[in-house]
Amino acid sequence: MRDLDDQLPGAVDELKELYPHTGRAFVLGITGNPGSGKSTLVDCLIRSYRDAGRRVGVVAIDPSSPFTGGAILGDRIRMQRHATDDGVFIRSLATRGHLGGLSRSTQDIIAVMDAMGHDVIIVETVGVGQDEVDVVSTAHTSVVVVVPGLGDEIQAIKAGILEIADILVVNKADREGADRTVADLSMMLDLRGAAAKRVRILKAVAVKEQGIGELVEAVSEHRAELDHETEGRRRALERAETRLKDLLRSLALDRALARVEAGEGLAALVQRIAERKIDPYSAAEKILAELMGEA
Amino acid sequence: MRDLDDQLPGAVDELKELYPHTGRAFVLGITGNPGSGKSTLVDCLIRSYRDAGRRVGVVAIDPSSPFTGGAILGDRIRMQRHATDDGVFIRSLATRGHLGGLSRSTQDIIAVMDAMGHDVIIVETVGVGQDEVDVVSTAHTSVVVVVPGLGDEIQAIKAGILEIADILVVNKADREGADRTVADLSMMLDLRGAAAKRVRILKAVAVKEQGIGELVEAVSEHRAELDHETEGRRRALERAETRLKDLLRSLALDRALARVEAGEGLAALVQRIAERKIDPYSAAEKILAELMGEA
Repeated sequence: MRDLDDQLPGAVDELKELYPHTGRAFVLGITGNPGSGKSTLVDCLIRSYRDAGRRVGVVAIDPSSPFTGGAILGDRIRMQRHATDDGVFIRSLATRGHLGGLSRSTQDIIAVMDAMGHDVIIVETVGVGQDEVDVVSTAHTSVVVVVPGLGDEIQAIKAGILEIADILVVNKADREGADRTVADLSMMLDLRGAAAKRVRILKAVAVKEQGIGELVEAVSEHRAELDHETEGRRRALERAETRLKDLLRSLALDRALARVEAGEGLAALVQRIAERKIDPYSAAEKILAELMGEA
Repeated sequence: MRDLDDQLPGAVDELKELYPHTGRAFVLGITGNPGSGKSTLVDCLIRSYRDAGRRVGVVAIDPSSPFTGGAILGDRIRMQRHATDDGVFIRSLATRGHLGGLSRSTQDIIAVMDAMGHDVIIVETVGVGQDEVDVVSTAHTSVVVVVPGLGDEIQAIKAGILEIADILVVNKADREGADRTVADLSMMLDLRGAAAKRVRILKAVAVKEQGIGELVEAVSEHRAELDHETEGRRRALERAETRLKDLLRSLALDRALARVEAGEGLAALVQRIAERKIDPYSAAEKILAELMGEA
Protein backbone atom coordinates (compact mmCIF):
# COMPACT_ATOMS: atom_id res chain seq x y z
CA MET A 1 0.00 0.00 0.00
CA ARG A 2 1.32 3.39 -0.96
CA ASP A 3 -0.25 6.58 0.26
CA LEU A 4 -0.51 9.61 -1.95
CA ASP A 5 -0.88 12.70 0.18
CA ASP A 6 0.28 15.51 -2.04
CA GLN A 7 -2.23 17.79 -3.70
CA LEU A 8 -3.01 16.03 -6.94
CA PRO A 9 -5.63 18.43 -8.32
CA GLY A 10 -2.90 20.98 -9.00
CA ALA A 11 -0.99 18.66 -11.29
CA VAL A 12 -3.11 19.42 -14.34
CA ASP A 13 -0.35 18.84 -16.88
CA GLU A 14 0.28 15.35 -15.61
CA LEU A 15 -3.43 14.62 -15.54
CA LYS A 16 -3.68 15.66 -19.19
CA GLU A 17 -0.94 13.19 -20.08
CA LEU A 18 -2.58 10.45 -18.08
CA TYR A 19 -6.01 10.92 -19.59
CA PRO A 20 -5.58 8.83 -22.76
CA HIS A 21 -4.54 5.95 -20.51
CA THR A 22 -7.72 6.07 -18.45
CA GLY A 23 -11.09 4.46 -18.97
CA ARG A 24 -9.98 0.89 -18.43
CA ALA A 25 -10.56 0.50 -14.69
CA PHE A 26 -13.88 -0.65 -13.31
CA VAL A 27 -15.17 1.90 -10.78
CA LEU A 28 -17.30 0.56 -7.94
CA GLY A 29 -19.08 3.10 -5.72
CA ILE A 30 -20.15 2.18 -2.19
CA THR A 31 -22.22 4.44 0.00
CA GLY A 32 -24.20 4.14 3.22
CA ASN A 33 -24.73 5.88 6.50
CA PRO A 34 -22.10 5.89 9.24
CA GLY A 35 -22.38 2.62 11.14
CA SER A 36 -23.64 0.61 8.18
CA GLY A 37 -20.37 -1.30 8.11
CA LYS A 38 -19.35 -0.29 4.61
CA SER A 39 -15.65 0.03 5.48
CA THR A 40 -15.65 -3.59 6.63
CA LEU A 41 -17.44 -4.52 3.43
CA VAL A 42 -14.82 -2.65 1.38
CA ASP A 43 -12.13 -4.48 3.30
CA CYS A 44 -13.70 -7.83 2.36
CA LEU A 45 -14.02 -6.75 -1.28
CA ILE A 46 -10.35 -5.75 -1.43
CA ARG A 47 -9.34 -9.19 -0.21
CA SER A 48 -11.67 -10.91 -2.63
CA TYR A 49 -10.38 -8.98 -5.64
CA ARG A 50 -6.77 -9.44 -4.53
CA ASP A 51 -7.34 -13.19 -4.20
CA ALA A 52 -8.49 -13.10 -7.82
CA GLY A 53 -5.26 -11.34 -8.79
CA ARG A 54 -6.78 -7.92 -9.43
CA ARG A 55 -5.02 -4.68 -8.60
CA VAL A 56 -7.28 -2.59 -6.39
CA GLY A 57 -7.47 1.15 -5.77
CA VAL A 58 -9.57 2.59 -2.96
CA VAL A 59 -10.71 6.19 -2.62
CA ALA A 60 -12.12 6.63 0.89
CA ILE A 61 -14.05 9.87 1.28
CA ASP A 62 -14.26 10.23 5.03
CA PRO A 63 -16.27 12.65 7.06
CA SER A 64 -13.41 14.51 8.59
CA SER A 65 -12.79 17.57 10.59
CA PRO A 66 -12.99 20.95 8.88
CA PHE A 67 -10.07 21.94 11.06
CA THR A 68 -7.81 18.94 11.22
CA GLY A 69 -8.70 17.31 7.94
CA GLY A 70 -8.10 13.99 9.68
CA ALA A 71 -9.57 10.74 8.48
CA ILE A 72 -11.30 8.30 10.80
CA LEU A 73 -8.76 6.34 12.77
CA GLY A 74 -10.69 3.08 12.84
CA ASP A 75 -10.85 2.79 9.08
CA ARG A 76 -7.16 3.51 8.77
CA ILE A 77 -6.39 0.73 11.22
CA ARG A 78 -8.67 -1.69 9.40
CA MET A 79 -6.88 -0.90 6.17
CA GLN A 80 -3.46 -1.60 7.69
CA ARG A 81 -3.72 -5.27 6.84
CA HIS A 82 -3.20 -4.23 3.22
CA ALA A 83 -0.18 -2.09 4.13
CA THR A 84 2.38 -4.47 2.72
CA ASP A 85 0.42 -5.33 -0.41
CA ASP A 86 1.68 -3.46 -3.47
CA GLY A 87 -1.45 -4.42 -5.38
CA VAL A 88 -3.56 -2.19 -3.15
CA PHE A 89 -3.47 1.58 -3.37
CA ILE A 90 -5.51 3.52 -0.81
CA ARG A 91 -6.19 7.24 -0.81
CA SER A 92 -8.25 9.05 1.84
CA LEU A 93 -9.96 12.29 0.92
CA ALA A 94 -11.38 14.68 3.46
CA THR A 95 -14.90 15.81 2.60
CA ARG A 96 -14.02 19.31 3.75
CA GLY A 97 -11.64 21.66 2.08
CA HIS A 98 -12.82 20.68 -1.38
CA LEU A 99 -15.56 23.29 -1.70
CA GLY A 100 -17.05 22.80 -5.13
CA GLY A 101 -14.38 20.26 -5.74
CA LEU A 102 -14.94 17.00 -3.88
CA SER A 103 -16.08 15.48 -7.11
CA ARG A 104 -13.15 16.98 -9.00
CA SER A 105 -10.56 15.70 -6.51
CA THR A 106 -12.12 12.26 -6.49
CA GLN A 107 -12.18 12.04 -10.27
CA ASP A 108 -8.52 13.12 -10.41
CA ILE A 109 -7.54 10.35 -8.02
CA ILE A 110 -9.58 7.83 -9.99
CA ALA A 111 -7.85 8.96 -13.20
CA VAL A 112 -4.42 8.44 -11.63
CA MET A 113 -5.28 4.99 -10.26
CA ASP A 114 -6.84 4.07 -13.58
CA ALA A 115 -3.77 5.12 -15.58
CA MET A 116 -1.57 3.22 -13.10
CA GLY A 117 -3.30 0.05 -14.19
CA HIS A 118 -5.63 -0.74 -11.34
CA ASP A 119 -8.35 -3.14 -12.40
CA VAL A 120 -10.91 -2.18 -9.80
CA ILE A 121 -11.27 1.21 -8.09
CA ILE A 122 -13.56 1.28 -5.08
CA VAL A 123 -14.94 4.68 -4.09
CA GLU A 124 -16.34 4.67 -0.58
CA THR A 125 -18.43 7.62 0.59
CA VAL A 126 -20.59 8.32 3.58
CA GLY A 127 -24.19 9.22 3.81
CA VAL A 128 -26.80 10.94 1.77
CA GLY A 129 -25.05 14.21 0.96
CA GLN A 130 -25.37 15.57 -2.53
CA ASP A 131 -21.68 15.55 -3.38
CA GLU A 132 -21.25 12.05 -2.02
CA VAL A 133 -24.23 10.78 -3.98
CA ASP A 134 -22.92 12.48 -7.11
CA VAL A 135 -19.55 10.80 -6.72
CA VAL A 136 -21.07 7.38 -6.29
CA SER A 137 -23.63 7.85 -9.03
CA THR A 138 -20.89 8.31 -11.61
CA ALA A 139 -19.39 4.90 -10.78
CA HIS A 140 -19.93 1.98 -13.13
CA THR A 141 -21.75 0.09 -10.40
CA SER A 142 -23.19 1.69 -7.26
CA VAL A 143 -23.70 -0.26 -4.06
CA VAL A 144 -25.84 1.20 -1.27
CA VAL A 145 -25.37 -0.38 2.17
CA VAL A 146 -28.20 -0.33 4.70
CA VAL A 147 -28.78 -2.09 8.02
CA PRO A 148 -31.87 -3.85 9.40
CA GLY A 149 -34.38 -1.87 11.41
CA LEU A 150 -34.27 1.30 9.43
CA GLY A 151 -37.35 2.90 10.98
CA ASP A 152 -37.70 6.48 9.84
CA GLU A 153 -34.62 6.13 7.75
CA ILE A 154 -36.44 4.07 5.15
CA GLN A 155 -38.26 7.10 3.78
CA ALA A 156 -35.04 8.99 3.36
CA ILE A 157 -33.42 6.06 1.65
CA LYS A 158 -36.44 5.68 -0.55
CA ALA A 159 -36.42 9.30 -1.55
CA GLY A 160 -32.72 9.91 -1.65
CA ILE A 161 -30.45 7.14 -2.67
CA LEU A 162 -32.55 4.22 -3.80
CA GLU A 163 -32.41 5.41 -7.39
CA ILE A 164 -28.64 5.50 -7.55
CA ALA A 165 -28.30 1.91 -6.29
CA ASP A 166 -27.53 -0.90 -8.69
CA ILE A 167 -27.11 -3.23 -5.73
CA LEU A 168 -28.62 -2.85 -2.26
CA VAL A 169 -26.78 -4.67 0.52
CA VAL A 170 -28.58 -5.25 3.81
CA ASN A 171 -25.47 -5.57 5.99
CA LYS A 172 -25.46 -6.83 9.59
CA ALA A 173 -28.11 -9.25 8.34
CA ASP A 174 -27.74 -11.41 11.46
CA ARG A 175 -29.62 -8.71 13.30
CA GLU A 176 -33.35 -8.87 13.89
CA GLY A 177 -35.49 -7.50 11.11
CA ALA A 178 -33.13 -8.22 8.20
CA ASP A 179 -35.76 -10.12 6.21
CA ARG A 180 -38.28 -7.41 6.89
CA THR A 181 -35.86 -4.79 5.58
CA VAL A 182 -35.23 -6.84 2.44
CA ALA A 183 -39.01 -7.14 1.97
CA ASP A 184 -39.51 -3.39 2.49
CA LEU A 185 -36.80 -2.55 -0.02
CA SER A 186 -38.23 -5.01 -2.54
CA MET A 187 -41.63 -3.43 -2.19
CA MET A 188 -40.20 0.04 -2.68
CA LEU A 189 -38.37 -1.12 -5.80
CA ASP A 190 -41.55 -2.73 -7.15
CA LEU A 191 -43.41 0.54 -6.72
CA ARG A 192 -41.12 2.16 -9.26
CA GLY A 193 -42.87 0.31 -12.05
CA ALA A 194 -41.79 -1.99 -14.83
CA ALA A 195 -39.64 0.55 -16.66
CA ALA A 196 -37.23 1.00 -13.74
CA LYS A 197 -33.76 -0.53 -13.89
CA ARG A 198 -33.14 -3.83 -12.17
CA VAL A 199 -31.73 -3.50 -8.66
CA ARG A 200 -30.32 -6.51 -6.83
CA ILE A 201 -30.88 -6.88 -3.08
CA LEU A 202 -28.41 -8.94 -1.07
CA LYS A 203 -27.85 -9.78 2.59
CA ALA A 204 -24.40 -9.72 4.15
CA VAL A 205 -22.61 -9.91 7.51
CA ALA A 206 -19.35 -8.23 6.59
CA VAL A 207 -17.63 -8.77 9.96
CA LYS A 208 -18.16 -12.54 9.51
CA GLU A 209 -17.30 -12.30 5.80
CA GLN A 210 -20.73 -13.65 4.91
CA GLY A 211 -22.34 -12.65 1.64
CA ILE A 212 -19.13 -11.31 0.12
CA GLY A 213 -18.96 -13.89 -2.66
CA GLU A 214 -22.57 -13.12 -3.57
CA LEU A 215 -21.80 -9.39 -3.64
CA VAL A 216 -18.76 -9.86 -5.88
CA GLU A 217 -20.89 -12.04 -8.14
CA ALA A 218 -23.69 -9.43 -8.30
CA VAL A 219 -21.14 -6.73 -9.14
CA SER A 220 -19.74 -8.90 -11.94
CA GLU A 221 -23.21 -9.50 -13.32
CA HIS A 222 -24.05 -5.83 -13.29
CA ARG A 223 -20.75 -5.00 -14.91
CA ALA A 224 -21.32 -7.53 -17.69
CA GLU A 225 -24.77 -6.08 -18.34
CA LEU A 226 -23.32 -2.57 -18.49
CA ASP A 227 -20.78 -3.60 -21.10
CA HIS A 228 -23.58 -4.77 -23.35
CA GLU A 229 -26.07 -2.05 -22.72
CA THR A 230 -26.66 1.51 -23.72
CA GLU A 231 -26.69 2.25 -19.99
CA GLY A 232 -22.92 1.81 -19.95
CA ARG A 233 -22.55 4.37 -22.72
CA ARG A 234 -25.00 6.75 -21.07
CA ARG A 235 -23.02 6.62 -17.83
CA ALA A 236 -19.72 7.25 -19.63
CA LEU A 237 -21.16 10.38 -21.24
CA GLU A 238 -22.61 11.49 -17.91
CA ARG A 239 -19.21 11.09 -16.26
CA ALA A 240 -17.50 13.08 -18.99
CA GLU A 241 -20.06 15.87 -18.76
CA THR A 242 -19.87 16.06 -14.96
CA ARG A 243 -16.09 16.12 -15.19
CA LEU A 244 -16.07 18.96 -17.72
CA LYS A 245 -18.52 21.06 -15.72
CA ASP A 246 -16.62 20.49 -12.46
CA LEU A 247 -13.41 21.65 -14.12
CA LEU A 248 -15.02 24.67 -15.79
CA ARG A 249 -16.51 25.77 -12.48
CA SER A 250 -13.33 25.25 -10.56
CA LEU A 251 -10.87 26.73 -13.09
CA ALA A 252 -13.13 29.72 -13.72
CA LEU A 253 -13.26 30.41 -9.99
CA ASP A 254 -9.47 30.28 -9.77
CA ARG A 255 -9.17 32.89 -12.52
CA ALA A 256 -11.90 35.09 -11.10
CA LEU A 257 -10.25 35.11 -7.69
CA ALA A 258 -6.88 35.92 -9.26
CA ARG A 259 -8.59 38.86 -10.96
CA VAL A 260 -10.03 40.06 -7.64
CA GLU A 261 -6.64 39.79 -5.97
CA ALA A 262 -5.08 41.84 -8.76
CA GLY A 263 -7.64 44.54 -7.98
CA GLU A 264 -9.06 45.54 -4.62
CA GLY A 265 -8.39 42.12 -3.08
CA LEU A 266 -10.82 39.45 -1.94
CA ALA A 267 -10.90 40.56 1.71
CA ALA A 268 -11.91 44.12 0.81
CA LEU A 269 -14.60 42.98 -1.61
CA VAL A 270 -16.02 40.45 0.86
CA GLN A 271 -16.13 43.21 3.46
CA ARG A 272 -18.17 45.44 1.14
CA ILE A 273 -20.59 42.57 0.48
CA ALA A 274 -20.99 41.83 4.19
CA GLU A 275 -21.67 45.54 4.81
CA ARG A 276 -24.35 45.51 2.06
CA LYS A 277 -22.48 48.20 0.08
CA ILE A 278 -22.59 45.93 -2.95
CA ASP A 279 -24.70 42.85 -3.56
CA PRO A 280 -22.90 39.58 -4.34
CA TYR A 281 -24.71 39.14 -7.68
CA SER A 282 -23.48 42.48 -9.04
CA ALA A 283 -20.00 41.84 -7.62
CA ALA A 284 -19.77 38.44 -9.32
CA GLU A 285 -21.10 39.79 -12.63
CA LYS A 286 -18.62 42.67 -12.56
CA ILE A 287 -15.66 40.36 -11.96
CA LEU A 288 -16.72 38.04 -14.78
CA ALA A 289 -17.31 40.96 -17.14
CA GLU A 290 -13.81 42.26 -16.43
CA LEU A 291 -12.37 38.79 -16.85
CA MET A 292 -14.05 38.38 -20.20
CA GLY A 293 -12.99 41.75 -21.50
CA GLU A 294 -16.54 43.09 -21.51
CA ALA A 295 -15.86 45.93 -19.10
CA MET B 1 -48.11 29.19 4.83
CA ARG B 2 -47.27 30.15 1.29
CA ASP B 3 -45.25 27.95 -0.98
CA LEU B 4 -42.79 29.38 -3.46
CA ASP B 5 -42.15 26.86 -6.18
CA ASP B 6 -40.86 28.90 -9.08
CA GLN B 7 -37.18 28.94 -9.88
CA LEU B 8 -35.84 31.77 -7.76
CA PRO B 9 -32.15 31.50 -8.64
CA GLY B 10 -32.89 32.93 -12.09
CA ALA B 11 -34.34 36.13 -10.72
CA VAL B 12 -30.98 37.82 -10.26
CA ASP B 13 -32.24 41.37 -10.81
CA GLU B 14 -34.80 41.03 -8.04
CA LEU B 15 -32.22 39.50 -5.75
CA LYS B 16 -29.94 42.50 -6.33
CA GLU B 17 -32.74 44.82 -5.31
CA LEU B 18 -33.54 42.75 -2.25
CA TYR B 19 -29.96 42.56 -1.04
CA PRO B 20 -29.77 45.89 0.84
CA HIS B 21 -32.82 44.76 2.81
CA THR B 22 -31.19 41.54 3.97
CA GLY B 23 -28.97 40.79 6.94
CA ARG B 24 -31.62 41.31 9.61
CA ALA B 25 -32.98 37.78 9.97
CA PHE B 26 -31.48 35.28 12.38
CA VAL B 27 -30.51 32.11 10.53
CA LEU B 28 -30.68 28.86 12.48
CA GLY B 29 -29.19 25.75 10.87
CA ILE B 30 -30.33 22.28 11.93
CA THR B 31 -28.73 19.09 10.69
CA GLY B 32 -28.74 15.44 11.64
CA ASN B 33 -29.07 12.01 10.10
CA PRO B 34 -32.37 10.68 8.77
CA GLY B 35 -34.38 9.37 11.69
CA SER B 36 -32.91 11.76 14.23
CA GLY B 37 -36.27 13.52 14.48
CA LYS B 38 -35.06 16.91 13.36
CA SER B 39 -38.21 17.67 11.36
CA THR B 40 -40.26 17.19 14.51
CA LEU B 41 -37.81 19.43 16.34
CA VAL B 42 -38.15 22.09 13.64
CA ASP B 43 -41.92 21.79 13.95
CA CYS B 44 -41.67 22.46 17.71
CA LEU B 45 -39.34 25.41 17.13
CA ILE B 46 -41.73 26.97 14.59
CA ARG B 47 -44.52 26.82 17.14
CA SER B 48 -42.34 28.24 19.88
CA TYR B 49 -41.19 31.20 17.75
CA ARG B 50 -44.73 31.78 16.49
CA ASP B 51 -46.02 31.83 20.08
CA ALA B 52 -43.45 34.56 20.75
CA GLY B 53 -44.82 36.54 17.81
CA ARG B 54 -41.89 35.96 15.46
CA ARG B 55 -42.26 35.48 11.73
CA VAL B 56 -40.59 32.24 10.75
CA GLY B 57 -39.13 31.05 7.45
CA VAL B 58 -38.14 27.43 6.91
CA VAL B 59 -35.86 26.09 4.18
CA ALA B 60 -36.16 22.30 4.18
CA ILE B 61 -33.43 20.63 2.16
CA ASP B 62 -34.82 17.14 1.75
CA PRO B 63 -33.14 14.08 0.37
CA SER B 64 -35.29 13.63 -2.65
CA SER B 65 -35.39 11.63 -5.77
CA PRO B 66 -33.06 12.56 -8.62
CA PHE B 67 -35.94 11.65 -10.89
CA THR B 68 -39.05 12.94 -9.22
CA GLY B 69 -37.60 15.79 -7.21
CA GLY B 70 -40.25 15.02 -4.61
CA ALA B 71 -39.90 15.89 -0.96
CA ILE B 72 -40.60 13.41 1.82
CA LEU B 73 -44.30 13.04 2.31
CA GLY B 74 -44.21 12.70 6.08
CA ASP B 75 -42.49 16.03 6.61
CA ARG B 76 -44.96 17.76 4.33
CA ILE B 77 -47.83 16.35 6.32
CA ARG B 78 -46.27 17.40 9.61
CA MET B 79 -45.84 20.92 8.28
CA GLN B 80 -49.52 21.13 7.28
CA ARG B 81 -50.48 22.36 10.69
CA HIS B 82 -48.82 25.64 9.76
CA ALA B 83 -50.68 25.78 6.44
CA THR B 84 -53.09 28.49 7.50
CA ASP B 85 -50.50 30.58 9.35
CA ASP B 86 -49.34 33.59 7.30
CA GLY B 87 -46.41 34.09 9.69
CA VAL B 88 -44.80 30.85 8.51
CA PHE B 89 -43.18 30.54 5.11
CA ILE B 90 -41.90 27.09 4.13
CA ARG B 91 -39.81 26.25 1.11
CA SER B 92 -38.60 22.75 0.25
CA LEU B 93 -35.46 22.36 -1.82
CA ALA B 94 -34.49 19.11 -3.47
CA THR B 95 -30.87 18.20 -2.85
CA ARG B 96 -30.60 17.00 -6.42
CA GLY B 97 -30.74 19.19 -9.48
CA HIS B 98 -28.66 21.90 -7.85
CA LEU B 99 -25.28 20.56 -8.88
CA GLY B 100 -22.76 23.06 -7.62
CA GLY B 101 -25.64 25.18 -6.56
CA LEU B 102 -27.41 23.79 -3.49
CA SER B 103 -25.69 26.42 -1.41
CA ARG B 104 -26.50 29.16 -3.94
CA SER B 105 -30.19 28.22 -4.12
CA THR B 106 -30.45 28.05 -0.36
CA GLN B 107 -28.80 31.44 0.11
CA ASP B 108 -31.14 32.96 -2.49
CA ILE B 109 -34.18 31.66 -0.61
CA ILE B 110 -32.77 32.92 2.68
CA ALA B 111 -32.19 36.37 1.12
CA VAL B 112 -35.82 36.51 -0.05
CA MET B 113 -37.22 35.41 3.31
CA ASP B 114 -34.90 37.86 5.05
CA ALA B 115 -35.96 40.80 2.88
CA MET B 116 -39.62 39.82 3.43
CA GLY B 117 -39.11 40.52 7.10
CA HIS B 118 -38.89 37.07 8.65
CA ASP B 119 -37.30 37.22 12.07
CA VAL B 120 -36.03 33.65 12.19
CA ILE B 121 -35.07 31.48 9.24
CA ILE B 122 -34.60 27.80 9.99
CA VAL B 123 -32.52 25.82 7.51
CA GLU B 124 -33.00 22.09 7.91
CA THR B 125 -30.62 19.72 6.14
CA VAL B 126 -29.98 16.02 6.28
CA GLY B 127 -26.86 14.12 7.09
CA VAL B 128 -23.17 14.60 6.82
CA GLY B 129 -22.82 15.58 3.19
CA GLN B 130 -20.41 18.36 2.33
CA ASP B 131 -22.95 20.70 0.76
CA GLU B 132 -25.37 20.20 3.62
CA VAL B 133 -22.67 20.86 6.18
CA ASP B 134 -21.58 23.96 4.27
CA VAL B 135 -25.11 25.30 4.25
CA VAL B 136 -25.56 24.78 7.96
CA SER B 137 -22.10 26.06 8.85
CA THR B 138 -22.93 29.47 7.38
CA ALA B 139 -25.93 29.86 9.71
CA HIS B 140 -25.68 32.16 12.71
CA THR B 141 -26.28 29.23 15.02
CA SER B 142 -25.87 25.58 14.04
CA VAL B 143 -27.73 22.78 15.81
CA VAL B 144 -26.68 19.16 15.28
CA VAL B 145 -29.27 16.53 16.26
CA VAL B 146 -28.14 13.06 17.31
CA VAL B 147 -29.92 10.10 18.91
CA PRO B 148 -28.86 7.81 21.77
CA GLY B 149 -26.97 4.63 20.99
CA LEU B 150 -24.79 5.99 18.24
CA GLY B 151 -22.39 3.07 18.09
CA ASP B 152 -20.03 3.45 15.17
CA GLU B 153 -21.73 6.65 14.24
CA ILE B 154 -20.02 8.52 17.05
CA GLN B 155 -16.69 8.53 15.25
CA ALA B 156 -18.25 9.96 12.14
CA ILE B 157 -20.00 12.63 14.14
CA LYS B 158 -16.79 13.37 15.96
CA ALA B 159 -14.83 13.72 12.79
CA GLY B 160 -17.42 15.24 10.56
CA ILE B 161 -19.90 17.58 12.10
CA LEU B 162 -18.97 18.12 15.71
CA GLU B 163 -16.98 21.21 14.83
CA ILE B 164 -19.81 22.97 13.07
CA ALA B 165 -22.19 22.49 16.04
CA ASP B 166 -22.91 25.38 18.37
CA ILE B 167 -25.55 23.26 20.07
CA LEU B 168 -25.76 19.47 20.18
CA VAL B 169 -29.22 18.05 20.82
CA VAL B 170 -29.53 14.43 21.91
CA ASN B 171 -33.09 13.84 20.70
CA LYS B 172 -35.26 10.83 21.60
CA ALA B 173 -33.62 11.17 25.00
CA ASP B 174 -36.23 8.87 26.58
CA ARG B 175 -34.42 6.02 24.86
CA GLU B 176 -31.83 3.91 26.59
CA GLY B 177 -28.32 5.30 26.52
CA ALA B 178 -29.17 8.99 26.31
CA ASP B 179 -27.00 9.94 29.28
CA ARG B 180 -24.17 7.86 27.95
CA THR B 181 -24.39 9.67 24.61
CA VAL B 182 -24.34 13.03 26.39
CA ALA B 183 -21.27 11.89 28.34
CA ASP B 184 -19.53 10.64 25.17
CA LEU B 185 -20.19 13.91 23.38
CA SER B 186 -18.96 15.92 26.38
CA MET B 187 -15.77 13.93 26.45
CA MET B 188 -15.21 14.47 22.75
CA LEU B 189 -15.75 18.19 23.17
CA ASP B 190 -13.32 18.28 26.09
CA LEU B 191 -10.67 16.62 23.95
CA ARG B 192 -10.67 19.63 21.64
CA GLY B 193 -8.80 21.63 24.26
CA ALA B 194 -9.37 24.92 26.03
CA ALA B 195 -9.16 27.09 22.89
CA ALA B 196 -12.20 25.46 21.27
CA LYS B 197 -15.49 27.29 21.14
CA ARG B 198 -18.17 26.52 23.70
CA VAL B 199 -20.71 23.93 22.55
CA ARG B 200 -23.92 23.37 24.50
CA ILE B 201 -25.32 19.84 24.84
CA LEU B 202 -29.04 19.40 25.46
CA LYS B 203 -31.47 16.50 25.73
CA ALA B 204 -34.87 16.58 24.05
CA VAL B 205 -37.85 14.38 23.21
CA ALA B 206 -39.31 16.33 20.30
CA VAL B 207 -42.38 14.14 19.81
CA LYS B 208 -43.36 14.89 23.44
CA GLU B 209 -42.29 18.52 23.09
CA GLN B 210 -39.76 18.03 25.87
CA GLY B 211 -36.60 20.13 25.91
CA ILE B 212 -37.87 22.65 23.37
CA GLY B 213 -37.86 25.59 25.80
CA GLU B 214 -34.28 24.76 26.74
CA LEU B 215 -33.26 24.58 23.09
CA VAL B 216 -34.87 27.95 22.30
CA GLU B 217 -33.08 29.39 25.34
CA ALA B 218 -29.72 27.94 24.28
CA VAL B 219 -30.19 29.38 20.77
CA SER B 220 -30.97 32.81 22.29
CA GLU B 221 -27.87 32.65 24.46
CA HIS B 222 -25.66 31.72 21.54
CA ARG B 223 -27.21 34.46 19.44
CA ALA B 224 -26.59 37.06 22.13
CA GLU B 225 -22.96 35.95 22.39
CA LEU B 226 -22.55 36.20 18.62
CA ASP B 227 -23.83 39.76 18.58
CA HIS B 228 -21.13 40.78 21.01
CA GLU B 229 -18.29 38.75 19.68
CA THR B 230 -15.86 38.87 16.84
CA GLU B 231 -17.18 35.40 15.96
CA GLY B 232 -20.37 37.03 14.69
CA ARG B 233 -18.35 39.29 12.42
CA ARG B 234 -16.14 36.43 11.27
CA ARG B 235 -19.19 34.40 10.29
CA ALA B 236 -20.72 37.31 8.38
CA LEU B 237 -17.54 37.67 6.33
CA GLU B 238 -17.40 33.92 5.78
CA ARG B 239 -20.99 33.95 4.53
CA ALA B 240 -20.28 36.82 2.14
CA GLU B 241 -17.17 35.08 0.79
CA THR B 242 -18.94 31.75 0.32
CA ARG B 243 -21.78 33.56 -1.41
CA LEU B 244 -19.47 35.39 -3.81
CA LYS B 245 -17.54 32.23 -4.70
CA ASP B 246 -20.73 30.23 -5.24
CA LEU B 247 -22.03 32.89 -7.61
CA LEU B 248 -18.73 33.21 -9.49
CA ARG B 249 -18.57 29.46 -9.98
CA SER B 250 -22.15 29.18 -11.06
CA LEU B 251 -22.32 32.25 -13.34
CA ALA B 252 -18.99 31.38 -14.94
CA LEU B 253 -20.25 27.88 -15.72
CA ASP B 254 -23.41 29.32 -17.31
CA ARG B 255 -21.28 31.50 -19.60
CA ALA B 256 -18.84 28.74 -20.43
CA LEU B 257 -21.68 26.39 -21.37
CA ALA B 258 -23.26 29.09 -23.52
CA ARG B 259 -19.90 29.45 -25.27
CA VAL B 260 -19.75 25.69 -25.90
CA GLU B 261 -23.30 25.68 -27.28
CA ALA B 262 -22.39 28.52 -29.64
CA GLY B 263 -19.56 26.31 -30.93
CA GLU B 264 -19.54 22.55 -31.38
CA GLY B 265 -22.21 22.02 -28.73
CA LEU B 266 -21.97 20.34 -25.33
CA ALA B 267 -23.07 16.90 -26.51
CA ALA B 268 -20.34 16.73 -29.18
CA LEU B 269 -17.65 17.91 -26.79
CA VAL B 270 -18.72 15.48 -24.06
CA GLN B 271 -18.63 12.72 -26.65
CA ARG B 272 -15.03 13.57 -27.57
CA ILE B 273 -14.05 13.55 -23.90
CA ALA B 274 -15.73 10.19 -23.29
CA GLU B 275 -13.88 8.78 -26.32
CA ARG B 276 -10.56 10.09 -24.92
CA LYS B 277 -10.01 12.24 -28.04
CA ILE B 278 -9.52 15.25 -25.79
CA ASP B 279 -8.89 15.35 -22.05
CA PRO B 280 -11.35 17.32 -19.89
CA TYR B 281 -8.61 19.58 -18.49
CA SER B 282 -7.53 20.80 -21.93
CA ALA B 283 -11.17 21.12 -23.01
CA ALA B 284 -12.04 23.26 -19.98
CA GLU B 285 -8.93 25.43 -20.39
CA LYS B 286 -9.68 25.99 -24.08
CA ILE B 287 -13.27 27.07 -23.37
CA LEU B 288 -12.16 29.49 -20.67
CA ALA B 289 -9.38 30.89 -22.86
CA GLU B 290 -11.90 31.57 -25.63
CA LEU B 291 -14.32 33.08 -23.16
CA MET B 292 -11.67 35.43 -21.84
CA GLY B 293 -10.47 36.52 -25.22
CA GLU B 294 -7.11 34.79 -24.80
CA ALA B 295 -7.53 32.53 -27.80
